Amino acid sequence: MKIYFAGSIRGGRADAALYARLIAHLQLRHTVLTEHVGAQSAFPTVEEGMTDHAIWLQDMAWLRDCDAVIAECSTPSHGVGYELAMAQQLGKPVFIFYRPDRGFLSAMLTGDPYYHISPYLEESELFSLADAALEFL
Amino acid sequence: MKIYFAGSIRGGRADAALYARLIAHLQLRHTVLTEHVGAQSAFPTVEEGMTDHAIWLQDMAWLRDCDAVIAECSTPSHGVGYELAMAQQLGKPVFIFYRPDRGFLSAMLTGDPYYHISPYLEESELFSLADAALEFL
Repeated sequence: MKIYFAGSIRGGRADAALYARLIAHLQLRHTVLTEHVGAQSAFPTVEEGMTDHAIWLQDMAWLRDCDAVIAECSTPSHGVGYELAMAQQLGKPVFIFYRPDRGFLSAMLTGDPYYHISPYLEESELFSLADAALEFL
Repeated sequence: MKIYFAGSIRGGRADAALYARLIAHLQLRHTVLTEHVGAQSAFPTVEEGMTDHAIWLQDMAWLRDCDAVIAECSTPSHGVGYELAMAQQLGKPVFIFYRPDRGFLSAMLTGDPYYHISPYLEESELFSLADAALEFL
């Protein structure tokens, strides 16, 4: 399947290494369209030399093209919130994961019955939950 | 006019006092449906005792009811990103303000031609820009 992985970029890169490991795990069985979100830089390679409008066009094209959205939401991000709402408008299955020890997730996400949301504590649990979510599709 | 003010709640309350002053300024001429976003507490009063689903229902009803959305986006927030995408789907005029010295705004916002986005440095500038935006409607 083609997966749109959503994680914070400009909102904060505290979890960038985690995104990279989750993306690598997903790539064992799937194609991750947004592989650059896990790149070990403040602004991932794909964004270099692109205008913000070009980034937006690319991400919206990937969002329309994907079979499912996987989001790691422990770091607050305007872009991820936007992508999750847009994914819903496009009718894509959306699976949201977050670490409750990092804070409460927005009520706009937890209160919206559209989303499949799972808290997790350990990275191995995140991988298992993501596998199970995609298995279910 | 009825204004939906969007600011970070669970994403971080660093700007809560600023939200309150902007809301008070807007209330000189308009009705602000989401007045609680400026409340001086970690979790504004309107959220106390409400389930996340009830908060989402209330906010979505206000979003449908409003004449315009004003967002202060200096603090990253999943909820605000979600609200801005939903406001677009509802065809509401959306005005986004942020302080560039606090970091880059998401390319999902700056790259999307739907939004009216203005950086600002001083609070007085924010008030003037918000007035001008609403004057324009």
